[in-house]
Amino acid sequence: MSVKADRLVRNARHVAFFRKKGRAGKARQLVDGLLADGAVEYPMEYPVTTEIPVDSAEYVQQLSRFYDEWCLRLAELARSEQVIVLCEGDPFLYGSFMHLYTRLRERGDVALQVVPGIPGMVGCWHATGEPITWGDDVLSVMTGTLSEDELVRRMDTAEALVVMKVGRNLPRIRRALVRAGRLEAAWLVQNGTTAHEQVARLAEVSDETCPYFAIVLVHGQGRRPEAAW
Amino acid sequence: MSVKADRLVRNARHVAFFRKKGRAGKARQLVDGLLADGAVEYPMEYPVTTEIPVDSAEYVQQLSRFYDEWCLRLAELARSEQVIVLCEGDPFLYGSFMHLYTRLRERGDVALQVVPGIPGMVGCWHATGEPITWGDDVLSVMTGTLSEDELVRRMDTAEALVVMKVGRNLPRIRRALVRAGRLEAAWLVQNGTTAHEQVARLAEVSDETCPYFAIVLVHGQGRRPEAAW
Ligand SMILES: C[S@@+](CC[C@H](N)C(=O)[O-])C[C@H]1O[C@@H](n2cnc3c(N)ncnc32)[C@H](O)[C@@H]1O
Ligand SMILES: C[S@@+](CC[C@H](N)C(=O)[O-])C[C@H]1O[C@@H](n2cnc3c(N)ncnc32)[C@H](O)[C@@H]1O
Repeated sequence: MSVKADRLVRNARHVAFFRKKGRAGKARQLVDGLLADGAVEYPMEYPVTTEIPVDSAEYVQQLSRFYDEWCLRLAELARSEQVIVLCEGDPFLYGSFMHLYTRLRERGDVALQVVPGIPGMVGCWHATGEPITWGDDVLSVMTGTLSEDELVRRMDTAEALVVMKVGRNLPRIRRALVRAGRLEAAWLVQNGTTAHEQVARLAEVSDETCPYFAIVLVHGQGRRPEAAW
Repeated sequence: MSVKADRLVRNARHVAFFRKKGRAGKARQLVDGLLADGAVEYPMEYPVTTEIPVDSAEYVQQLSRFYDEWCLRLAELARSEQVIVLCEGDPFLYGSFMHLYTRLRERGDVALQVVPGIPGMVGCWHATGEPITWGDDVLSVMTGTLSEDELVRRMDTAEALVVMKVGRNLPRIRRALVRAGRLEAAWLVQNGTTAHEQVARLAEVSDETCPYFAIVLVHGQGRRPEAAW
């Protein structure tokens, strides 16, 4: 965590964060033990999706309403109080907070400050102990929600790969890696930089029980001046 | 800077960093005012390249020797002292330190710890105030050292773009962006997150005097649940 974020978290009196219903919330867990006594917590629970598919128009509408409502609530609170919103990694890289950010910005009556963070993928490539890009390597960052064909197409034009939002998408990601000839070089990092971190060659783990909070990585092998000894 | 890096920097008694001959060194400048009194500094100066092209076999050989020598020197120092090596951004993303890291690891007699950092590109997209990726956007990170054709090919398969190592490569990067139809959407961030930060639409700045320490960005415009109001 950055020095700036650490200071904000320790001094915050109003702390909001996203979570799935019934879960602790990843971002909230990351600051366990850091929050001040008496800090008020605002868990923002995603609408439940048991009845409707997450990519349906209806779910998108529910999500929209959810962000609209929390935007309103935080804006009201922010009239008299400083509020912080916890994020995992960097808030501007595929973050849920971005939906609140654009809405709050559009209102124009809330002073917003966004603090850069270390993206989860950075912690995950460090967990493998190998640099991610060398020389002229291109790094492509994609989400496992893409179709198999799209995954292959994107994997084919990059030396280094990061695939986020893994979980139930792992079988499709794996098939795409096979077609792109990259499976043998791929790593799976689950719960990177947490107490439950697991690092493995993707070829050596099964598709079952992979959490959403996992990243698939392929390291670049670009040019480098070789050691002379 | 991360809490962990901040602590290491403030307590370090031996501090190494890369720099061009005659320059202060970017990584060194970032910790101005943080180093302890009496910290010993080890500027690692890249071999000078006025006579030979940087992509010649001869220069690569010189670089190799340079890394070999510093590896030896730091390994000797590390026998009795803790030494830190300063990096800009994340050490494992196109970093010079990686060349020392692989050499030191190969020796096997030095305890190595690498601390994840916030990549420069993250600071740069925050400088524009816009999220970099939404929904299924693919983000491709490349270096301006690629040929124009390669740049176009890579830009064509990603929604969000980061081009690093800009400087004298800017005219070629610009031509590639024009061919990929992305110039109007591109930003140039010079010296991001420093006192000399400059943020501009790329179409509105000239190719002249762009520093090496600059990043070209194109934000993704992926799907998002729209605000209902
Ligand atoms: C909605 S995105 C948020 C990304 C976040 N803003 C970031 O900068 O990493 C959620 C995805 O991030 C990835 N992720 C983030 N941090 C991670 C970590 N520490 N370990 C494993 N995966 C992580 C997972 O792929 C997860 O599905
Ligand atoms: C050798 S690479 C090192 C990258 C570094 N390890 C990182 O994580 O950002 C040097 C390139 O990083 C980019 N860069 C890093 N930090 C930057 C910043 N704060 N502002 C602008 N460019 C930056 C520039 O494109 C520069 O040419």
